[in-house]
Amino acid sequence: MRILMINPNTTAAMTQRMLAVARSAAAPATELAAVTAARGVPYIATRAEAQIGGATVLELLAENHVGSDAAIIAAFGDPGLLGARELFSVPVVGVSEAAMLTACMLGRTFSIVTFSRALGPWYRECVEIHGLASRLASIRMVDRPFQSVADVQEEHQELLVSAADRAVTEDGADVVIFGGGPLAGLADRVKDRIDVPVVDPLAAAVKQAEALHALKARKAVKGAFRRPDPKPAIGVPDALARYLEHDDGSS
Amino acid sequence: MRILMINPNTTAAMTQRMLAVARSAAAPATELAAVTAARGVPYIATRAEAQIGGATVLELLAENHVGSDAAIIAAFGDPGLLGARELFSVPVVGVSEAAMLTACMLGRTFSIVTFSRALGPWYRECVEIHGLASRLASIRMVDRPFQSVADVQEEHQELLVSAADRAVTEDGADVVIFGGGPLAGLADRVKDRIDVPVVDPLAAAVKQAEALHALKARKAVKGAFRRPDPKPAIGVPDALARYLEHDDGSS
Amino acid sequence: MRILMINPNTTAAMTQRMLAVARSAAAPATELAAVTAARGVPYIATRAEAQIGGATVLELLAENHVGSDAAIIAAFGDPGLLGARELFSVPVVGVSEAAMLTACMLGRTFSIVTFSRALGPWYRECVEIHGLASRLASIRMVDRPFQSVADVQEEHQELLVSAADRAVTEDGADVVIFGGGPLAGLADRVKDRIDVPVVDPLAAAVKQAEALHALKARKAVKGAFRRPDPKPAIGVPDALARYLEHDDGSS
Amino acid sequence: MRILMINPNTTAAMTQRMLAVARSAAAPATELAAVTAARGVPYIATRAEAQIGGATVLELLAENHVGSDAAIIAAFGDPGLLGARELFSVPVVGVSEAAMLTACMLGRTFSIVTFSRALGPWYRECVEIHGLASRLASIRMVDRPFQSVADVQEEHQELLVSAADRAVTEDGADVVIFGGGPLAGLADRVKDRIDVPVVDPLAAAVKQAEALHALKARKAVKGAFRRPDPKPAIGVPDALARYLEHDDGSS
Amino acid sequence: MRILMINPNTTAAMTQRMLAVARSAAAPATELAAVTAARGVPYIATRAEAQIGGATVLELLAENHVGSDAAIIAAFGDPGLLGARELFSVPVVGVSEAAMLTACMLGRTFSIVTFSRALGPWYRECVEIHGLASRLASIRMVDRPFQSVADVQEEHQELLVSAADRAVTEDGADVVIFGGGPLAGLADRVKDRIDVPVVDPLAAAVKQAEALHALKARKAVKGAFRRPDPKPAIGVPDALARYLEHDDGSS
Amino acid sequence: MRILMINPNTTAAMTQRMLAVARSAAAPATELAAVTAARGVPYIATRAEAQIGGATVLELLAENHVGSDAAIIAAFGDPGLLGARELFSVPVVGVSEAAMLTACMLGRTFSIVTFSRALGPWYRECVEIHGLASRLASIRMVDRPFQSVADVQEEHQELLVSAADRAVTEDGADVVIFGGGPLAGLADRVKDRIDVPVVDPLAAAVKQAEALHALKARKAVKGAFRRPDPKPAIGVPDALARYLEHDDGSS
Repeated sequence: MRILMINPNTTAAMTQRMLAVARSAAAPATELAAVTAARGVPYIATRAEAQIGGATVLELLAENHVGSDAAIIAAFGDPGLLGARELFSVPVVGVSEAAMLTACMLGRTFSIVTFSRALGPWYRECVEIHGLASRLASIRMVDRPFQSVADVQEEHQELLVSAADRAVTEDGADVVIFGGGPLAGLADRVKDRIDVPVVDPLAAAVKQAEALHALKARKAVKGAFRRPDPKPAIGVPDALARYLEHDDGSS
Repeated sequence: MRILMINPNTTAAMTQRMLAVARSAAAPATELAAVTAARGVPYIATRAEAQIGGATVLELLAENHVGSDAAIIAAFGDPGLLGARELFSVPVVGVSEAAMLTACMLGRTFSIVTFSRALGPWYRECVEIHGLASRLASIRMVDRPFQSVADVQEEHQELLVSAADRAVTEDGADVVIFGGGPLAGLADRVKDRIDVPVVDPLAAAVKQAEALHALKARKAVKGAFRRPDPKPAIGVPDALARYLEHDDGSS
Repeated sequence: MRILMINPNTTAAMTQRMLAVARSAAAPATELAAVTAARGVPYIATRAEAQIGGATVLELLAENHVGSDAAIIAAFGDPGLLGARELFSVPVVGVSEAAMLTACMLGRTFSIVTFSRALGPWYRECVEIHGLASRLASIRMVDRPFQSVADVQEEHQELLVSAADRAVTEDGADVVIFGGGPLAGLADRVKDRIDVPVVDPLAAAVKQAEALHALKARKAVKGAFRRPDPKPAIGVPDALARYLEHDDGSS
Repeated sequence: MRILMINPNTTAAMTQRMLAVARSAAAPATELAAVTAARGVPYIATRAEAQIGGATVLELLAENHVGSDAAIIAAFGDPGLLGARELFSVPVVGVSEAAMLTACMLGRTFSIVTFSRALGPWYRECVEIHGLASRLASIRMVDRPFQSVADVQEEHQELLVSAADRAVTEDGADVVIFGGGPLAGLADRVKDRIDVPVVDPLAAAVKQAEALHALKARKAVKGAFRRPDPKPAIGVPDALARYLEHDDGSS
Repeated sequence: MRILMINPNTTAAMTQRMLAVARSAAAPATELAAVTAARGVPYIATRAEAQIGGATVLELLAENHVGSDAAIIAAFGDPGLLGARELFSVPVVGVSEAAMLTACMLGRTFSIVTFSRALGPWYRECVEIHGLASRLASIRMVDRPFQSVADVQEEHQELLVSAADRAVTEDGADVVIFGGGPLAGLADRVKDRIDVPVVDPLAAAVKQAEALHALKARKAVKGAFRRPDPKPAIGVPDALARYLEHDDGSS
Repeated sequence: MRILMINPNTTAAMTQRMLAVARSAAAPATELAAVTAARGVPYIATRAEAQIGGATVLELLAENHVGSDAAIIAAFGDPGLLGARELFSVPVVGVSEAAMLTACMLGRTFSIVTFSRALGPWYRECVEIHGLASRLASIRMVDRPFQSVADVQEEHQELLVSAADRAVTEDGADVVIFGGGPLAGLADRVKDRIDVPVVDPLAAAVKQAEALHALKARKAVKGAFRRPDPKPAIGVPDALARYLEHDDGSS
């Protein structure tokens, strides 16, 4: 199968790192492709940026999803996820959703550990939107300046591990999720130093995308996730406009 | 004061109708301006369309809000609301938020009555995001084809009134909200035929925008609604890019 | 329009202070009248006192509301609010309700800051009754003895500001509400020293009363907030008895 | 032990009927006394009436509780319950609280069946205030006019049994509660005709009052249910005023 | 009446201690019998152990309940409670359920204080399953090694009292519950040193069993708690098999 | 990898059918083994039966899990799941948990469709225990007698499809789950006749077990899912006793 990984951030270096993590998690037969947003900000960290980034996700999917069997939105917070799930017929998985649902099978409660205080309130809304607030033990944020977002996981590795430890011992987390694209791959490197299971959102998303593909669930043709009725769309990129207008040849 | 009304739909006729309703609700000293989205779809009705429309809201605010004292997002579902509230220093009010909060002061429970079945699940998510699910009696949708979205309130007025009646007698609604931009002004015309208070979202939003302005609440400089840190933004309209980059002269 | 402000506490000095705050928040055309409870306690701070005070609210409304366009119950905790909303046809607004709903338009979460530890549990119940627990960041109580309840805001101003600060930095409050009649007017004086929007419950209630009046919502004639059926009432003040007995000439 | 039963309604005939039911539920050694409200309405059915009735409960308790080991508030909806629990040192039990908590030990979910449509929304608030909404299957209301509230259980017995049946078969109720003072004693008469356990609120309250007395739990001297600090009280009946002012000789 | 107390732990000494506590709480006419599990672990403290212990509860009830009027499952966490309630026609009360529901009549919020950190998460699930999470102030665990589980309440009495104190002053508990079979009887010994009501789960369960018996509620013959249809059962103890197969002569 | 499928029901024919479904969902490299309970009932359908079946699950895992990389509890309702997750170091997946979490990635809301009315309340508790009640649209039960539980999916296929249809059109389900071991494989056969994605719990569980194995999450050594401390266990099967006593050679 072929999975398309969408990075709604404009930082191509992050895409490469995430692609490497995704590849190491993927089954041998899984092919991975990735696109980086050509518009937006280097790293989405607020609701405003997610609003823009989520629209970019729809554009990138419209332009690139043909030929893929599933797609991953590779930004914690899952910008554009529900809209993508309406619009396209391939399964679309968000990394935070995949991480949280996977964590639910490894314990009762999970904590999200991340690298910036700004992310906390937005992540909490993400948990609530997925209806999983009763499973959340805490969100722990390392709140230190860093040199480069691409390398923050190396720079602050000790602080992140220590935040994870406190999530376990003080907040009662049964599982730890390292949240935020720049932390992709960290789980694998430090998991032996943390006393509970640790979930890498991107790795989880790859496995969930593979699972959804294997289960061959159909695209809804009724209800809230059927494809929206065709509408004229102006001022949006061509590929997306054709998709909104049902002028994409798909039906 | 001056209120900027943002219509994230591309239908200018709807903007005119909404502007008239807003004017009739406004205090004498309130000046109203309106902009219509130049990109997007004629009428936002799904999560995908709201994702795009919410990004457009941010663009329109960046381009037009200077000189205004408050802004209204004039699409039920409040696309872009939280992002706008982060990014800009004027108070921003969403019509569904304003309608629901106003309804809370007129009874315990409210029902939302609208004109299309497609809107139900998205409206329900909107209620949940605002944390008001415990106050929702029901969402009632008239599910009939209509000629033109701009005139659906005239075409299906009897059905809408009858749906409101059933919300009261069968679902226990203490208050009725007519949801959806195309229903702006309907509340005022039919309120004598409905046995409980009826709220017009746009009228409610005008009063709430006036209230917030009068209360002179400051823009947050800490926490989840402070302005996001500056970031380079590429591929977004100039005014919005300058705003994301703190290159707007505001500080 | 004319707003009747009910102080269910017996402290007339507090009424005067609150009236001044209300006046400074009111629109030019808004006339304000106030009544102070002739029976009850100097300052309602517990459920038992609120039970008595809420009954007094109904009596005061029955005796004084004719000629008013809206009423405000000027005690945080909103004693008698729902009963008043059933019984009378003018809109009735509670100060805590108005503060919380207004806060919801300025952020995701609010904290209530008050001057006495005794108030915490009762305020929490008030939040829960309004269905807004998911929006509450914390209730912070300054727990120091004070000379006079009427002057507690001056006496403990620094402690109150510092409690507000901690609500923002430690509890994640997006908005701060100063709760309790004796703190009326404090928000305006200290808002520049607090890093998020601050809401004065009384000022918010004045704006919401004006908004409800402007929206001309009808009194329910069906459902849970229609006027109760007439019943003989004994041992209650005459004006209220006539109201319960539908002997008030209103219909 | 001695239990004081407070009827906050002014209908003495109802008190007599309830006293008979209470006696048949009481242990041999339990002595029962009852007082009927001298002020208020014949039958509390709305929030406004409960506000007044709850204040009367406090007055009646202040005047009559000395010498009793526990008190019962004999009106579904439990007017004045939390205030009474603060103010007095004897255990105070509400009939709806007792009924619901007892029902929780007989199944997962309960339905409340009552005789008047007006009661539904108020009863639902009562369930929510007790935090038991997740256990509520439904509230079923027989909505027929009746001759006399004192005899409504005889007049509409068939309708009430049939409503209970539908609660079981359509709403999934594991337990049925007949709510409303006028239905006291009905459970016992019809329980063989209903396929699940049926709870009589007054009988449940008697058993719970006996249980609390036997458990000898102390009155709180800290926290939200300690006795409120003394305050001057004007315009309230003497016995209650002395209680609010700590002039009752109790400490 | 006759109450059968089931100890699903294999520690007979604990049964004796619990029986003494139960006797001192019981009404004069109440007869008490007790059985100790012949299989399982000395003290249930985890979900795995509760799974085994809950099955043992069903076996013990099948073997011993004939002739009893009610049964108590004497292990905090209530292993096997809902299954027992389905299967048998006598009322079955769990000690944690009884403690929490009793606590609800003595305040708004309760804390559970126990002697081992391992118990916290399991107790929390127990609270959630009973739908009472909104009433829980905290679970406080003394986390010290102890010599013998049977004597832990003597050994760590001071720590347990101090944990209860902090539950009151720091967590806002209106009521304290000492949870865990080994703490049976502690409430009575220390209640004068704790500033709010203290509930002993076993004593509460005895009173609730007496109450349910006195109320003569019928066994459900419809819905979720009717007796399960007969099924062949292999490999389970004879008495239980006969009960599952309806070969017990009961109908 | 090797997955051990535990059927806690005693019906071997059901195990064979489930094994075939599991095989067709498994990746080529996945090996599947299955065990059928030697004690219990032919088909678990109530809480009492699940209590016994859950204990059997622990026994079967203790006896059979060595050499497996993951285990599946193949009974909707997930008997024994949390206990198994504590006790054993291999990942353990429940079929209902896997189905619901998978459904969450295919829509907002899911309905569970099953073949017997008895299952409804138990399934609802299962949803609540997993904290997913906010995602549940409905549980629909075909309530007709059937010849053999092993063949009920063929016998009542039309009724089951029609119940699924009504879940979509009347209850707003975005996804349908066919719940209950006897319905294993039905999803695949009828999915083209249902207008939304359909999830087969067993197939979902196989994919989730594969995913958890691939993610190599560690067994918790702290917190609520670490292995319970060793305890003497009497009267339980040898393999399980050795496991409870840490006499299994694993550490």
